[in-house]
Amino acid sequence: MRVIFNEELKAVADDLDRMVQDVRKAINGAGDALINQNLEAAQAVIDGDIEIDALESSVIDQCVKLLAKQSPVATDLRVVVSTLRLAATFERMGDLARHIAEAARRTYPASPLPAEAQPLFAEMQAFLDNVADQMTSMLSDRDTKTAEEIILNDDKLDALHKKTFELAQSETWSGTNQQLIDVVLIGRFMERLGDHAVSAARRVVFIVSGFDPSKEPTRDEGTDID
Amino acid sequence: MRVIFNEELKAVADDLDRMVQDVRKAINGAGDALINQNLEAAQAVIDGDIEIDALESSVIDQCVKLLAKQSPVATDLRVVVSTLRLAATFERMGDLARHIAEAARRTYPASPLPAEAQPLFAEMQAFLDNVADQMTSMLSDRDTKTAEEIILNDDKLDALHKKTFELAQSETWSGTNQQLIDVVLIGRFMERLGDHAVSAARRVVFIVSGFDPSKEPTRDEGTDID
Repeated sequence: MRVIFNEELKAVADDLDRMVQDVRKAINGAGDALINQNLEAAQAVIDGDIEIDALESSVIDQCVKLLAKQSPVATDLRVVVSTLRLAATFERMGDLARHIAEAARRTYPASPLPAEAQPLFAEMQAFLDNVADQMTSMLSDRDTKTAEEIILNDDKLDALHKKTFELAQSETWSGTNQQLIDVVLIGRFMERLGDHAVSAARRVVFIVSGFDPSKEPTRDEGTDID
Repeated sequence: MRVIFNEELKAVADDLDRMVQDVRKAINGAGDALINQNLEAAQAVIDGDIEIDALESSVIDQCVKLLAKQSPVATDLRVVVSTLRLAATFERMGDLARHIAEAARRTYPASPLPAEAQPLFAEMQAFLDNVADQMTSMLSDRDTKTAEEIILNDDKLDALHKKTFELAQSETWSGTNQQLIDVVLIGRFMERLGDHAVSAARRVVFIVSGFDPSKEPTRDEGTDID
């Protein structure tokens, strides 16, 4: 029984790893689409989101089967319940990357962002590319040190996100209202990608340490419109 | 054992009902703050979000304990797993209502929205107030008919949300860039509230019918920036 459980748990973990690798690719690709007007990259992110959705369904199915057949307790149960949550988080990250790719595709060959906003968004993207790398290694190695880095670093993304609002209200701003809409929405998508990475990191800390991060509110604070 | 399980499941269901009632209050209050510049309502939504977060923690704890001690299968397992997901959805809806309330508080006694945008947002709010009512009765009665209405009706909110972008790019638009930022963000929060209600409705259909709504992608499509 125990052997079967471990094998089945390993299979779910593999699917979850595949999900996070797909999400990383989606984040990288959305950035390439947004920053370099790479239309192929945009299309790949949009098409690839279906695979992320399918992996989520598969992970949920496997978890429910594990719960039904194996009745895990203690750490094993914690892993299965956290896996359900992680799959939902990664699915949402795929959606957000897709939204960014869709915006880039819509305005191609132009950027959705006015010139003066591009350096700031390139900085946010560099931050997210790094988060995507961290998430991948955090998950495959159950590495709480990296998880804690993700949690602590998110303030930097929030600060960059705030700057997008300052820019939009500054003298330098030359964009159209359509560009302002895109700056606000794409900025929001990127900030939410960071929030979801934090939520995933807390989940990994929970799996490893048993400390329940849901006791700390996972609000998207400090980045909001006020 | 079965009696204990049913009693414990009833206790979780009660907490989930309390959550949805709190979310309904939060949606109503955020609307009152946004549309009528009701500062007290805004503050109540902001303060009340802590209770929604606490209820989520409590629901998750109870579900994990149920899974550990009772090892539910079949329909019971479906209910427990769906409850985990519903609690996460309601927690997020509380956050979104809070964001709207925070925007209203920040600009008080003025509205965050320029005059020409107010009728459109009042219409979106009326839609969401109705959704909040539907969600409450759907959950307490396990009523799939109302759930299906929520799922089908969401297009109307998406259409209103699209109109906010059209307005911001029209000749009529007289708002500042700060107001445009608020229109985009608040519009997005409201649209996401609708999406989460759809996700909750699909979950209720799943509990009752066993048809798995996760096989249908729960994307927030049709409402995006392109």
